[in-house]
Amino acid sequence: MAEADLRIHAVDQGPLEHWETQLPLAVVFAESVEDVQKLVRLAGEHGVAVVTRAAGTSVSGGANAVTGSVVLNLTRMNRILQVRPEDEVAVVEPGVINAELNAAVAEHGLMYAPDPASYRTSTIGGNVATNAGGLRCAKYGVTRDSVLALDVVLADGTLIRTGSATFKGVAGYDLTSLFVGSEGTLGIIVGITVRLRYLSPKVETIAAFFDDLPTAAQGVLEIGRARVQPAIMELLDRGTMQALDGAHGSDLAQRGAALLLLQTDGYGAQIEAEMIREVLVKLGGRVSAPGDEESNRLVNLRRHARGDGIVNEARVGEDVAVPRSQLVKYVEALEGLAAEHRVDLKVVAHAGDGNLHPTFSVSSDDGVIPAEAMERLQAALDGSVRVALDMGGTITGEHGIGTYKLRWLGWEQNDDVIALQRQIKQAFDPNNLLNPNRAIL
Amino acid sequence: MAEADLRIHAVDQGPLEHWETQLPLAVVFAESVEDVQKLVRLAGEHGVAVVTRAAGTSVSGGANAVTGSVVLNLTRMNRILQVRPEDEVAVVEPGVINAELNAAVAEHGLMYAPDPASYRTSTIGGNVATNAGGLRCAKYGVTRDSVLALDVVLADGTLIRTGSATFKGVAGYDLTSLFVGSEGTLGIIVGITVRLRYLSPKVETIAAFFDDLPTAAQGVLEIGRARVQPAIMELLDRGTMQALDGAHGSDLAQRGAALLLLQTDGYGAQIEAEMIREVLVKLGGRVSAPGDEESNRLVNLRRHARGDGIVNEARVGEDVAVPRSQLVKYVEALEGLAAEHRVDLKVVAHAGDGNLHPTFSVSSDDGVIPAEAMERLQAALDGSVRVALDMGGTITGEHGIGTYKLRWLGWEQNDDVIALQRQIKQAFDPNNLLNPNRAIL
Repeated sequence: MAEADLRIHAVDQGPLEHWETQLPLAVVFAESVEDVQKLVRLAGEHGVAVVTRAAGTSVSGGANAVTGSVVLNLTRMNRILQVRPEDEVAVVEPGVINAELNAAVAEHGLMYAPDPASYRTSTIGGNVATNAGGLRCAKYGVTRDSVLALDVVLADGTLIRTGSATFKGVAGYDLTSLFVGSEGTLGIIVGITVRLRYLSPKVETIAAFFDDLPTAAQGVLEIGRARVQPAIMELLDRGTMQALDGAHGSDLAQRGAALLLLQTDGYGAQIEAEMIREVLVKLGGRVSAPGDEESNRLVNLRRHARGDGIVNEARVGEDVAVPRSQLVKYVEALEGLAAEHRVDLKVVAHAGDGNLHPTFSVSSDDGVIPAEAMERLQAALDGSVRVALDMGGTITGEHGIGTYKLRWLGWEQNDDVIALQRQIKQAFDPNNLLNPNRAIL
Repeated sequence: MAEADLRIHAVDQGPLEHWETQLPLAVVFAESVEDVQKLVRLAGEHGVAVVTRAAGTSVSGGANAVTGSVVLNLTRMNRILQVRPEDEVAVVEPGVINAELNAAVAEHGLMYAPDPASYRTSTIGGNVATNAGGLRCAKYGVTRDSVLALDVVLADGTLIRTGSATFKGVAGYDLTSLFVGSEGTLGIIVGITVRLRYLSPKVETIAAFFDDLPTAAQGVLEIGRARVQPAIMELLDRGTMQALDGAHGSDLAQRGAALLLLQTDGYGAQIEAEMIREVLVKLGGRVSAPGDEESNRLVNLRRHARGDGIVNEARVGEDVAVPRSQLVKYVEALEGLAAEHRVDLKVVAHAGDGNLHPTFSVSSDDGVIPAEAMERLQAALDGSVRVALDMGGTITGEHGIGTYKLRWLGWEQNDDVIALQRQIKQAFDPNNLLNPNRAIL
């Protein structure tokens, strides 16, 4: 395989500041469970590490190759094996694209709920390996909440089935949840049985502009106090709106310093939307009218906003989650950190879940960022992680640890918790060949 | 401690046909995390098994003592440590009664969703240890879906914290889910952080009587086809109604051979209830009118129906779950098994989840059941488990394996899956002192 091809498979979409690209020995495209078993056995015999990936849309470096490894690419295992509308269940191979599964089940009035921003390109296998989140988790939960059973190839090539295709099941330990989010380090997921949910007969969208970010964040808490559960509740700051304006020719940033974007669904959607509008108007929000077309366009913009290709800047971002009550204080702290370290800040948040994606950046006219500026950038980033933890939060709400967040894992988890996870890794993968040196310390 | 006291702590509410009561050496009532740590360390030094329990409402023998063990009773660790309405989170000790937590959070417009039939007596710790289900799981999921973080005392006395008090979090392996449902075999749960949900502003109840059980089960599928999600969807057969009539002086059994009891909630409750009524009338159901008072009473009867104190019979029951599409065929198979083995049958089901609790029984005038009848009873029971597995189901939807269902675990899980679980047990509890010989083979 040409070096260029190896290079494509050497990294995912995670940041590369702290990662020197390592080329794999080879890339293997599996087309069946047997292919995966054969490769794993062969790799085991030769003591070669296996880095499993599909679309490579991870933003945490969880699919980065390591030197001397074989990259196992599962994108060709992309068949939807079963759609069982009566059982409200589907069975898929790991390489099925999230959006394709949703298209296939929509004709039955069903949806696969987890919808990471990458849903048009990322795979169910990758979503499961990272326990991906998305917009709809505010109401429908994360990937784990939609996974009923898994087919997994273990480190010795054994194929096992965890869980069952029933909505409930408590036979033995919850191996399914253990594999979900384990980032390819405990076994290779080769089949996934998911629970489907009902597509909503109607959706109401609400867009509300605010004069500052903390007030918009306060809106999230006020909606919670009204005990209304939106299906999605996204928070965008001015920097994010400016980026969208740049990419799509909109004028969002002129209309406020922060935007709350919400959808309600189900048969109570209209009543709930009305309650939310009332709450947000009271808070000083400029709130879209019912049926407003633009709001729907905004949700689509938000859905598809991922990376905006600016080259003359250095950016670092993260994925913390905080208890909801801390949202206002946390965005204030972010603004404080940006000012203190003289860096730019953009914030977009799955605010309903308290899950934030702040991005700090520094830019220069000629694209050359001085080392001193890079240090300020990292200081702001580390500070933002520390503050989230101090508020009772986590370093990663939905992106996973990968390689990129390993440096913070010890800030969140103490040695005893880390030791316990090492024991699990040791039991499942005694020779440390499955996606080594990521997800856990 | 007097033998009578030991005896009380020797068994839970599981069936005793296959279990010879084993007396523990002692019962320890822990009042703090430190008490638990001290006991576990002491037990470790002396190689004494620790069987943890709280209310002892398990129906699977998961809290049965073993000879030479110490029973660790957590009922005195019963403080609600935090209710954080803005975070929609509560933190409790393991001995808090489910209903008491719900009462405490209701004043904030919140609920703790999992509601096993034992909710007025069972504890959150026990609910977590067994991943308990209940009525509301049809819409709100099982215990695991409401647990965010755990404080756990490990086999060596170390206290760890898993998860975080955020709605999302993917740092490291999902240890929280691994402890949920592990039945006290991997560690002792001493603190629980739960996610709360919004109490519904309105609830609509629907009762529908049918002439036979399969048609009522068909109703569950038809409601699914209409893509309406009830909060509760319970199925009761004639035997169950007769038992309720006997206990409460009602006349349910005269009104049909099967009863579907449903509730819808949320702001769409009324529309959804109307849709459900339409579906069930079409199917020949005799459906309660909107606002009907009796339906609400029926739901309460169902909630509180657990054991009915008949002494002149022998009963065996189980807790299978099947894919929803199999519901009709499964209840038909149950009726066939009852006829074939000449035993009586009662069925109550969390039908929305495909989770059934069939009970087979034989009776005699003098209370002495001949061995031959007991054999028929077991044959019907084993047959009902086998059929559920053949349909892609599981041997336990929500009660757990305990000691009682160990005999079927090998029917559901193959040796490789069992071996993997043994490795986890070995890593967490190398001397096999935590609730030994249950939950896994």
